[in-house]
Amino acid sequence: MFTEQWRPKVIAALNGQELKVVKVQGSFPWHRHEACEELFLVWKGRFRVEFRDHVVELGPGEYVVVPCGVEHRTAADEQAEVLIFEPAEVLNTGDVVDPVFTAPRGVHL
Amino acid sequence: MFTEQWRPKVIAALNGQELKVVKVQGSFPWHRHEACEELFLVWKGRFRVEFRDHVVELGPGEYVVVPCGVEHRTAADEQAEVLIFEPAEVLNTGDVVDPVFTAPRGVHL
Repeated sequence: MFTEQWRPKVIAALNGQELKVVKVQGSFPWHRHEACEELFLVWKGRFRVEFRDHVVELGPGEYVVVPCGVEHRTAADEQAEVLIFEPAEVLNTGDVVDPVFTAPRGVHL
Repeated sequence: MFTEQWRPKVIAALNGQELKVVKVQGSFPWHRHEACEELFLVWKGRFRVEFRDHVVELGPGEYVVVPCGVEHRTAADEQAEVLIFEPAEVLNTGDVVDPVFTAPRGVHL
């Protein structure tokens, strides 16, 4: 239903949390979320979450939880579709404001 | 990795919430969760969430949020695989204790 990449869309909100869907390709800026954990679940394609000391490679049905305060970046060689679960109002670039990648909050599909 | 039905397995915990996976077939008891909302996202198969006044039919990639306090039951004619996102420690049968369907909490995959 949408084509733009790196702009998460809220598809459900519950218990102060949001479920988002995002299309990604390329690499996202390094950032961290000081106050919350973040879950990435791959729906389609190959996706990876890079940490400073290791990389988690994921395919459909695979997921990772990024701990609070841990620097990470997400990446995909080909376009992937990913579900994100995290508290409402989390900024996608965390502690960083990026002119290209920082997405508006609260955009619903 | 498992075969039993109606016994959700916790596959991730974050921000006081849990992501669970469950295999279902048949009908679950009617119940409600007074204090929280509950998200069902279908991974595989056909699944439905029945409310007293309507039924939500779901296929892969489709989801529903059950509002707090609203009576519902889940059902599937053939086995379906479903993701559940809800606060930690929610009882699967909510306000009901069922000798067959009430599952132990905190069972991890």
